[in-house]
Amino acid sequence: MDTPLAPGPEFDRIRALVRAASAIAPAAPGGGPGDDAAVVDVPPGERLVVSTDLSIEGVHFERAWLRWETIGYRAVTAALSDLAAMAARPLGVLLSIALPPELDTAVLESIAAGAGRSLAAAGAPLLGGDLSRSPGPVVLDAAVLGSAGRPVGRRGAVPGDEVWVTGELGGAALAVRDWQQSLEPDPRARRAFERPRARLEESRWLAEEVRPSALIDLSDGLAGDAAQLAAASGVRVDIDLDAVPLAAPLEEYSDRGAALRLALTGGEDYELLVTGAPGRLGTARRAFEDRHGVRLTRIGRVEEGRGVGWRRGGDAIALALAAFDHFAETE
Amino acid sequence: MDTPLAPGPEFDRIRALVRAASAIAPAAPGGGPGDDAAVVDVPPGERLVVSTDLSIEGVHFERAWLRWETIGYRAVTAALSDLAAMAARPLGVLLSIALPPELDTAVLESIAAGAGRSLAAAGAPLLGGDLSRSPGPVVLDAAVLGSAGRPVGRRGAVPGDEVWVTGELGGAALAVRDWQQSLEPDPRARRAFERPRARLEESRWLAEEVRPSALIDLSDGLAGDAAQLAAASGVRVDIDLDAVPLAAPLEEYSDRGAALRLALTGGEDYELLVTGAPGRLGTARRAFEDRHGVRLTRIGRVEEGRGVGWRRGGDAIALALAAFDHFAETE
Repeated sequence: MDTPLAPGPEFDRIRALVRAASAIAPAAPGGGPGDDAAVVDVPPGERLVVSTDLSIEGVHFERAWLRWETIGYRAVTAALSDLAAMAARPLGVLLSIALPPELDTAVLESIAAGAGRSLAAAGAPLLGGDLSRSPGPVVLDAAVLGSAGRPVGRRGAVPGDEVWVTGELGGAALAVRDWQQSLEPDPRARRAFERPRARLEESRWLAEEVRPSALIDLSDGLAGDAAQLAAASGVRVDIDLDAVPLAAPLEEYSDRGAALRLALTGGEDYELLVTGAPGRLGTARRAFEDRHGVRLTRIGRVEEGRGVGWRRGGDAIALALAAFDHFAETE
Repeated sequence: MDTPLAPGPEFDRIRALVRAASAIAPAAPGGGPGDDAAVVDVPPGERLVVSTDLSIEGVHFERAWLRWETIGYRAVTAALSDLAAMAARPLGVLLSIALPPELDTAVLESIAAGAGRSLAAAGAPLLGGDLSRSPGPVVLDAAVLGSAGRPVGRRGAVPGDEVWVTGELGGAALAVRDWQQSLEPDPRARRAFERPRARLEESRWLAEEVRPSALIDLSDGLAGDAAQLAAASGVRVDIDLDAVPLAAPLEEYSDRGAALRLALTGGEDYELLVTGAPGRLGTARRAFEDRHGVRLTRIGRVEEGRGVGWRRGGDAIALALAAFDHFAETE
């Protein structure tokens, strides 16, 4: 890739970053990083969809748990997942990286290679970014650009809609819990944390085939993100606890309550919560699963009211749950 | 502004941030932050221009020097300046903020108010962002979106072009040097550092009236940014040291060499370096200065070759200068 920058150690680092990412990701329009800003064309008739996502050492990840490549992969994937939540097609990513002085260019290249793998999976180029020294933690911030003819978002759920979820939940949270207890996670849980997929194709397929009323990605956990969808749509979301699909290692848990708690409150599954008029998702389920190799499960209903209601065996039950909250006292 | 988020301390903080910024900045299309991503329309016939800019405590600013409002203002202005460098019209900004736990919501609101003032000056809305705890420094990352029919950039300078600069240089660097020596800066230098303007209208006017061959904003200092323009265009940029316009407090310096060094190497003036065919900028200078209240000064010429050449009294001279470089050994 053509990166016409002047000499200097900062620019050497940018060149190394761009080389490492663009060895893997699609080429950027116009030759990639090198100007003050990147230039992108939004497809005619589509609207621009943008979001940004911070990944900070000590808050979102720990150096000891993951390879640098994985840290780069996850930071970009988490941001791309916000495009999936809007049923948008990715146009590209701007990646800002701040590194403490003790970490060298090899670390930067590993982060960039991971970012590149996530971009390649999404078919999106690295458009640019920023690079800085950090006096403390490693900081990544990925700003994602996408486009959609009809962005979906979380505001359109109406009473009577069904609530469905893609994939299985709680795998990433299980890995985190094991790391926090200095245990080596189940390899399937580790993989769920290390290699999540942004459900980009899945959400565009759903937008096209099902016309869902609302969509949200599960980045903070089902409990928290269902509450966001409920608040944004001005409805209550009722979820049947028996229907929630658990990640395979959680299915094997003897303590079903503990397993469910991880699946409901654990962040970073990056699956989709989707609502739609009765029957629409059920009719499309088989085609969805065949095409994407991802489960689609009905887990509840939208009702008049507010917040999230939990049901078991048809009865409403009370659950005290906290989603991941960066500022919660009880974190 | 309508921010339909669920209850919780993290979302209270986001609400406070959005309120503080949007009390000042233009309203976002579609009601502002609240979905997973923001939706924006790019004007028909224009291309999307995007960039991102990190501001990190201990690297880009010190808490002791500035109010939080100023830190927010400068972070957004620095990012918007990259749109000026492309002659793009701003569409909006995504702002990511990471704060250490000891800083409370009042700090966040001050940062947001400063960001809002910069956005208001640019006529651009806050589209969204991200918010996190930081285990160390305050981190801001502003991703800016703009559009341009004909983005300019730094690659088009050709031998024979004239080199011009807007405004006066070195004021911000003088303030930083004084703070580093525990001196209270000259109020004009302090103002240059605290309230830079992104030259957005100026650059669009130049793009329209002058059709410049290349543009770059002076974020790393004239010496460094001229070297970037030279590298990107594959030319040498010759600069006449006697012509470089100095910020007023530097004009009063007895040590002209020290003043010039600050003007050449000091970052964060956010003025524009612009190249154009002979005569074009000279013809437009009076109209530009009358309209924008900003000086436009011819400081050099584009030649065959590479790098930056320095001249004094018509003779080439050698200067050992280093632009601000986050990773330079000599920083």
